[in-house]
Amino acid sequence: MTHKIAILGASGYTGAELVRLIATHPEMEIVALAAERKAGMEMRDVFPHLRHLDLPTLVKIGEIDFSTVDLCFCALPHKTSQEVISALPADLKIVDLSADFRLRDPEAYETWYGNPHSAIEMQKEAVYGLTEFYRDQIKNARLVAGTGCNAATGQFALRPLIEADVIDLDEIIMDLKCGVSGAGRALKENLLHAELAEGYHAYAVGGTHRHLGEFDQEFSAIAGREVKIQFTPHLLPTNRGILATCYVKGDAQVIHKAFENAYADEPFIELLPLGQAPSTKHIRGSNFCHIGVVADRIEGRTIVVAALDNLTKGSSGQALQNANLMLGVEETTGLMLAPLFP
Amino acid sequence: MTHKIAILGASGYTGAELVRLIATHPEMEIVALAAERKAGMEMRDVFPHLRHLDLPTLVKIGEIDFSTVDLCFCALPHKTSQEVISALPADLKIVDLSADFRLRDPEAYETWYGNPHSAIEMQKEAVYGLTEFYRDQIKNARLVAGTGCNAATGQFALRPLIEADVIDLDEIIMDLKCGVSGAGRALKENLLHAELAEGYHAYAVGGTHRHLGEFDQEFSAIAGREVKIQFTPHLLPTNRGILATCYVKGDAQVIHKAFENAYADEPFIELLPLGQAPSTKHIRGSNFCHIGVVADRIEGRTIVVAALDNLTKGSSGQALQNANLMLGVEETTGLMLAPLFP
Amino acid sequence: MTHKIAILGASGYTGAELVRLIATHPEMEIVALAAERKAGMEMRDVFPHLRHLDLPTLVKIGEIDFSTVDLCFCALPHKTSQEVISALPADLKIVDLSADFRLRDPEAYETWYGNPHSAIEMQKEAVYGLTEFYRDQIKNARLVAGTGCNAATGQFALRPLIEADVIDLDEIIMDLKCGVSGAGRALKENLLHAELAEGYHAYAVGGTHRHLGEFDQEFSAIAGREVKIQFTPHLLPTNRGILATCYVKGDAQVIHKAFENAYADEPFIELLPLGQAPSTKHIRGSNFCHIGVVADRIEGRTIVVAALDNLTKGSSGQALQNANLMLGVEETTGLMLAPLFP
Amino acid sequence: MTHKIAILGASGYTGAELVRLIATHPEMEIVALAAERKAGMEMRDVFPHLRHLDLPTLVKIGEIDFSTVDLCFCALPHKTSQEVISALPADLKIVDLSADFRLRDPEAYETWYGNPHSAIEMQKEAVYGLTEFYRDQIKNARLVAGTGCNAATGQFALRPLIEADVIDLDEIIMDLKCGVSGAGRALKENLLHAELAEGYHAYAVGGTHRHLGEFDQEFSAIAGREVKIQFTPHLLPTNRGILATCYVKGDAQVIHKAFENAYADEPFIELLPLGQAPSTKHIRGSNFCHIGVVADRIEGRTIVVAALDNLTKGSSGQALQNANLMLGVEETTGLMLAPLFP
Repeated sequence: MTHKIAILGASGYTGAELVRLIATHPEMEIVALAAERKAGMEMRDVFPHLRHLDLPTLVKIGEIDFSTVDLCFCALPHKTSQEVISALPADLKIVDLSADFRLRDPEAYETWYGNPHSAIEMQKEAVYGLTEFYRDQIKNARLVAGTGCNAATGQFALRPLIEADVIDLDEIIMDLKCGVSGAGRALKENLLHAELAEGYHAYAVGGTHRHLGEFDQEFSAIAGREVKIQFTPHLLPTNRGILATCYVKGDAQVIHKAFENAYADEPFIELLPLGQAPSTKHIRGSNFCHIGVVADRIEGRTIVVAALDNLTKGSSGQALQNANLMLGVEETTGLMLAPLFP
Repeated sequence: MTHKIAILGASGYTGAELVRLIATHPEMEIVALAAERKAGMEMRDVFPHLRHLDLPTLVKIGEIDFSTVDLCFCALPHKTSQEVISALPADLKIVDLSADFRLRDPEAYETWYGNPHSAIEMQKEAVYGLTEFYRDQIKNARLVAGTGCNAATGQFALRPLIEADVIDLDEIIMDLKCGVSGAGRALKENLLHAELAEGYHAYAVGGTHRHLGEFDQEFSAIAGREVKIQFTPHLLPTNRGILATCYVKGDAQVIHKAFENAYADEPFIELLPLGQAPSTKHIRGSNFCHIGVVADRIEGRTIVVAALDNLTKGSSGQALQNANLMLGVEETTGLMLAPLFP
Repeated sequence: MTHKIAILGASGYTGAELVRLIATHPEMEIVALAAERKAGMEMRDVFPHLRHLDLPTLVKIGEIDFSTVDLCFCALPHKTSQEVISALPADLKIVDLSADFRLRDPEAYETWYGNPHSAIEMQKEAVYGLTEFYRDQIKNARLVAGTGCNAATGQFALRPLIEADVIDLDEIIMDLKCGVSGAGRALKENLLHAELAEGYHAYAVGGTHRHLGEFDQEFSAIAGREVKIQFTPHLLPTNRGILATCYVKGDAQVIHKAFENAYADEPFIELLPLGQAPSTKHIRGSNFCHIGVVADRIEGRTIVVAALDNLTKGSSGQALQNANLMLGVEETTGLMLAPLFP
Repeated sequence: MTHKIAILGASGYTGAELVRLIATHPEMEIVALAAERKAGMEMRDVFPHLRHLDLPTLVKIGEIDFSTVDLCFCALPHKTSQEVISALPADLKIVDLSADFRLRDPEAYETWYGNPHSAIEMQKEAVYGLTEFYRDQIKNARLVAGTGCNAATGQFALRPLIEADVIDLDEIIMDLKCGVSGAGRALKENLLHAELAEGYHAYAVGGTHRHLGEFDQEFSAIAGREVKIQFTPHLLPTNRGILATCYVKGDAQVIHKAFENAYADEPFIELLPLGQAPSTKHIRGSNFCHIGVVADRIEGRTIVVAALDNLTKGSSGQALQNANLMLGVEETTGLMLAPLFP
């Protein structure tokens, strides 16, 4: 059976990544691609790497006949996303890749994103899209909220440890490094090649990055108490990849064991042998997340490192994984592509 | 039906690329991986990006039982390759990725590679592996010689023009740019990141690059007379991708039409509209070759630009395409992955 | 003696490069920095790498008292530049880095730049700023027009050969590769890191790049007849550096000798031994130009390769070299910095 | 007055960086360059970016007449360095860039470097080369031991805070990111462009990096008690630059004030305004160190980030700064080059 798919926001990187992945998906067919400012253009002119595919012409959202669509991916900016989704048919299955439905508390949303939430009712039915931890709910969800790419990485590194109660919840530091495609295709001076290449720096230093809203929500929910981590992202001169280096207090062997238990049956999570650390080189372009655990020389301290591709496992791959579940397709379909190396 | 595959030289980049591609091939199963110096190791320790795959342990070639193998990829260095292949079962289907069986004239081989050919008899049965132009012979071949990656790029840009007799054969200049993975995983000072990143230069300047042997053989054969092109490769600070900028004398529209005729039914060759030029960004990690034709301001001169991924269409993807044909599998199987961008 | 310097357009890359170079110039002092949109800001906030310098606050051009200025660098966009320069004091020494005064023929200017020239009278007194070939005129000039960065590279590679009449003037092909900083700090999608890194492509293919105007003017003037070259630039994923690979018909030894004669006493032009080719790695951040000559395997054909840093020798370094001459300062002052490698 | 300089180990990156810096130093002249395996070669053939300089031919160390040398830089591997230095004239001023004389305790040396120290007597007279903190001793030293490049970065970020007693000494975490040139020009698979570019990873995870020996020695000495920090370096795909992100417990304003006090008169240390963080883009190729302080959202926690160029301030620039002091030359001579950006 072939499911009919629409992608809104097809002219951004996550939209293009969805097309790349669905291109070889045996049970999905893209029937509509929307991009407001580029409506009327062919996808091959917006993304020449998709030139070989026979895709629908880009249209405005209003031009799509959603009655023929089985599932809609929304790869729009936050705030726009909630407005658009509110106007879609009430029974349409939706995977939203924006931040709009990630935070269950509208006040938290407003705090982190600066605008009041305009679709609070829909927020209530939205399921948080971290597949490995919300799988059953996602299967039955109508609206799934894809996680932030940094938020996904950090949660893969920490959730099982909080769940298993094997680390000090008040002493979690996450030093995260990410490539530039996570910032999207926006025209900003700091995203220019000449500004980024050959250098690196921390940004949103001091706990101001929006993905902290997700960490706070999720970690506190698991722990049953408030958990606030320290989180400092760094921008690195590569296009893809996130590496989260987490400094925790806890025993490395116990921590490694907790991961073994949590991820034993997960098709996309690869736990490295104790003592090894992953590289973003080894997950690029794939839906895999590699996790390593190393004991520090200081007793009782452990370093946990997680690596994934922000555009794949961190957003569009995750979205497709969720869509598979929502449509009753085998979860890994279209997602077993090996990473591209070198 | 599942075909059983062996890969010799699995610890190099082309070996790893074969594994990456075959990983999701529905009709192939890797049953043996050989790497002399790394025998006994697991592939995941040699190439951590393949960690998620269940692969055979690396062995020495002598340890493989070839009676259970349907097709063998040979990703060994030239000279070693002919020695190894000479010792393999005489009825084993083989796709060789080295230079050893590309040149039909043993003297030309010795001239370009510096050593006499030690398997001249086998050379006679070898078919040159540029699929689009040797398809029928490859279907029935036992031994296929994969082309050089630069040689493939240049031929996609020039063969149809020589065939159609639409350019001046004495005035062909190819200025080629390639990424570094084509040089393999060898430990050479000039391949270090610190030596390569942030700069670029020409190498093998003056017509000394070995892939000229292939150009001379193929272009002369097509033209029915000696054709010698000027060929200057440049090494660029990226890992993958070849861009061949060809300066020819001929009419751009006629040239574009010649490409249309030649490539109309080719699944992996994408001809851009007249006036557009391709980028290596848009073919990375895929088996596609993009070709552009632009008229110069000087009448009667045309620029032809071809782009492909040296590790995919330039070697391992091409090899798999040939293997599909040799095994009676649909040619494009396992090769329709979209390029990775950004 | 210390000369007082103003820089207009200080918030662009060439402006910053001028400040970098003048920072350790013993006979110059920056007394004014102008940047219309960033007036009021400190240079350290626009360019944090200049943080250690004690520099004037950015102002609007109208706020500068030019009576205290000995020489003014104009690093503004073309068209703006001619308007601004027309309004400056008529006796102020000016080095313009824009394209506005490079082309002596106003019609040629309009053809290549799309707007009529509004300061035709000033054009007449402007001296073309390729120091090595216009040195005597520059010493006495009031207004010097810095060359295009690609134009400079190509002329270093070809002028002595046209002058010495040792190559076929109708068969010159220049395949040029350049880093991205030459495109400036403008917000354009194709200059984003995610769009540029890890790939390369030709642009302005077919003879449409504006620097052809300079090649046509200069080469024709030297030859005493019309000379039109083929010129195809490529954009590479590095920030600095231009490599011009020139395909000419002529004898390599004769060509090498012509360079020896032309550049024997030039402090910034380094001719490599016959048979060697340069790399952009080896001139980065410096005012040096490296030139190599290699004979092709086809008799009578030669490859000439020139490398320089687009921001230094290609624009701001060249501008400072000219300013030194105009102010009676030793020509190499402040410019002998060795390249940065790796 | 011109001081005569010898450089041992001139064929490595730190050797070349010394030559680059001394090239425009008005009071130093390079009279001897040694490189055992490349003796007999010209520097321009080992490092073409130095082609414009008139330098002595490379020789073996034994060929140098040290009686004419005022100061000798030793840029040799550890272990080799102590052997070579032991054999040099006992009154020769030496700046050693290796690890051999950094650790005052021979046992600590053996623990971290794996071999017993063979020049224990000389160790006693060696002064630790972190100029800003050992300036007076360096002025009178005969033998100065340059610091590790990571060790320098970390100490600039932490020494004033330990000295001023404003942070919790048991809770210091340093997450460091460094470019690849710090690993030298050695032929190692993990330093190849294809292995490094487009990815990043942690290495020496768990407190096994040798520069911890320096942190332990120096921080404990300042504090008057044992101080052990957590230190995890990461290898990034750039050639130059170190960024040390330090997580400390202490008040951000107090910490910023401590830096102000410590670095008020330092010519090469730039303290950013409270709340800003530095980038390696802005110190490349220079002797400057940029330091930023940001308060975390969690009260009582602060992030300190320091950035410097590993080859300049982290090794060769620091070495030259020390040599200036040892020779009675103004400390900043030859070192005020502005960073190269972009």
